[in-house]
Amino acid sequence: MTKIKAAIVGYGNIGRYALEAVLAAEDFELVGVVRRNGQDIPAELVGHTVVDDIEKLGKVDVALLCSPTRVIGDLAEKILNLGINTVDSFDVHSEIVALKKRLDKAAKQRDSVAIVSAGWDPGSDSIMRALMLAMAPKGVTYTNFGPGMSMGHSVAAKAIDGVKDALSVTIPLGTGVHRRMVYVELAANANFDEVAKAIKADSYFASDETHIRQVDSVDALKDVGHGVHMTHKGVSGATHNQLFEYSMRINNPALTSQFMVSAARATMKQSPGAYTVIEIPPVNFLQGDLDNLIAKLV
Amino acid sequence: MTKIKAAIVGYGNIGRYALEAVLAAEDFELVGVVRRNGQDIPAELVGHTVVDDIEKLGKVDVALLCSPTRVIGDLAEKILNLGINTVDSFDVHSEIVALKKRLDKAAKQRDSVAIVSAGWDPGSDSIMRALMLAMAPKGVTYTNFGPGMSMGHSVAAKAIDGVKDALSVTIPLGTGVHRRMVYVELAANANFDEVAKAIKADSYFASDETHIRQVDSVDALKDVGHGVHMTHKGVSGATHNQLFEYSMRINNPALTSQFMVSAARATMKQSPGAYTVIEIPPVNFLQGDLDNLIAKLV
Repeated sequence: MTKIKAAIVGYGNIGRYALEAVLAAEDFELVGVVRRNGQDIPAELVGHTVVDDIEKLGKVDVALLCSPTRVIGDLAEKILNLGINTVDSFDVHSEIVALKKRLDKAAKQRDSVAIVSAGWDPGSDSIMRALMLAMAPKGVTYTNFGPGMSMGHSVAAKAIDGVKDALSVTIPLGTGVHRRMVYVELAANANFDEVAKAIKADSYFASDETHIRQVDSVDALKDVGHGVHMTHKGVSGATHNQLFEYSMRINNPALTSQFMVSAARATMKQSPGAYTVIEIPPVNFLQGDLDNLIAKLV
Repeated sequence: MTKIKAAIVGYGNIGRYALEAVLAAEDFELVGVVRRNGQDIPAELVGHTVVDDIEKLGKVDVALLCSPTRVIGDLAEKILNLGINTVDSFDVHSEIVALKKRLDKAAKQRDSVAIVSAGWDPGSDSIMRALMLAMAPKGVTYTNFGPGMSMGHSVAAKAIDGVKDALSVTIPLGTGVHRRMVYVELAANANFDEVAKAIKADSYFASDETHIRQVDSVDALKDVGHGVHMTHKGVSGATHNQLFEYSMRINNPALTSQFMVSAARATMKQSPGAYTVIEIPPVNFLQGDLDNLIAKLV
């Protein structure tokens, strides 16, 4: 079997789990890890190739982009231009269509393939929402998140003046409404009331019920478990009250990086261009012979 | 907007609900209904074209095959040979790969498209199983059915000597184990103990816990509600204990026929050939502009 040659680009939270997911996938071969400081090699990377530029690696089929969302556009474009497929977990929902269009152009010029926003939301949850709509085209879908740590909200809270460290936990209140529990460690001389006011006024928190709690150690509270509870109540044909539910309790970065690896596999079967996960045949995410997968799953 | 021209072939339990689902889909146009006796026109078909042969209809893009599973192979092959796409809800899991291969040949000869086994199991459940495996490739998936009426088991029980009418209800006991509750109306002179023994010995029931109950009226118990509860506990990358659950409570023929209509829409976007539902990009099941669907669902 010819293995899929994968590179991991960016070695933060997601990158570490992506390493595990690539190594666990029998049909993948890790070509190397790309990080800004190619000399920084933690224990688990000893024995693997670590470089500071993807062009220093040999042939790469697909790059798992584990860098922050804000750099994904430029990074993916650059790598697609090298004729290498990309997968990312870009997570700004309102900008996905634009990202896809941009990368579609780059990918088609160099016969490469991008699958964008291939984490869990956007990502696997997006496929669930599409499936629920295919089963009952009319009706309301609610996606309830948590309880779990929100990376984006935690970063936003940490950026507030006077905050040394912060953790924002998303609490589902049902029907897509969420409470934010924000735990903050204050900088010296910071005033808690002012910090709390500033967090509540931030655009990340302004529209949700938000509670701020001062703690001695944010680190002592961190847990990357997360969850989703999705419901759809709708109409199939002319028949109302069709009820669907989906839920998961998962390690967040482990699921994100696993789904990216599954999407990386799928890039090998697509025509050049950029795609969101709902445009990919689900079986292409999976390892194995097509007929065997059909016999087992359908 | 050019509407998709659909025919409904077979007008039993599924066909009636397919009529509602086609009429409810704004992007579809019902060309006609094909049934053995084209003269038999119930109230809801008045105003629609009813014929005894699909060739008597005008141009048809896609035929929804609502006939019994055992005739699907020949019927689909014939219709694909006319250059018309087909969708079916063929439900013998062990024969799906063979059916697909057979129809793939017919479809490619005439540039038509078949999507096979596009009900809910096989069908939408199959997509869920694929998605769960893409999220956590290692681990066990259990599909628990019911409580709800099993069409296949009811027909099998009714075929036993001495049974006038029968209803087999599937009760989920968890971990994919099911109890069968079989309600029978006896023919004159039939002996209950002999009937019960024959049902329990039938291959449909022999391997499950089966209880037989004699009732005065089977019809008084009939309800087409059904359900599924699917669980997957597995490993993403190297992270264990990833937990996924999916459940639904639905009107069985309404969901089957709705998913067939969604699949009929998807046939319009596929290259010639035959496909199972896990080979279809989920967004193609849905009505609407691609970018709008991505913005809304991803």
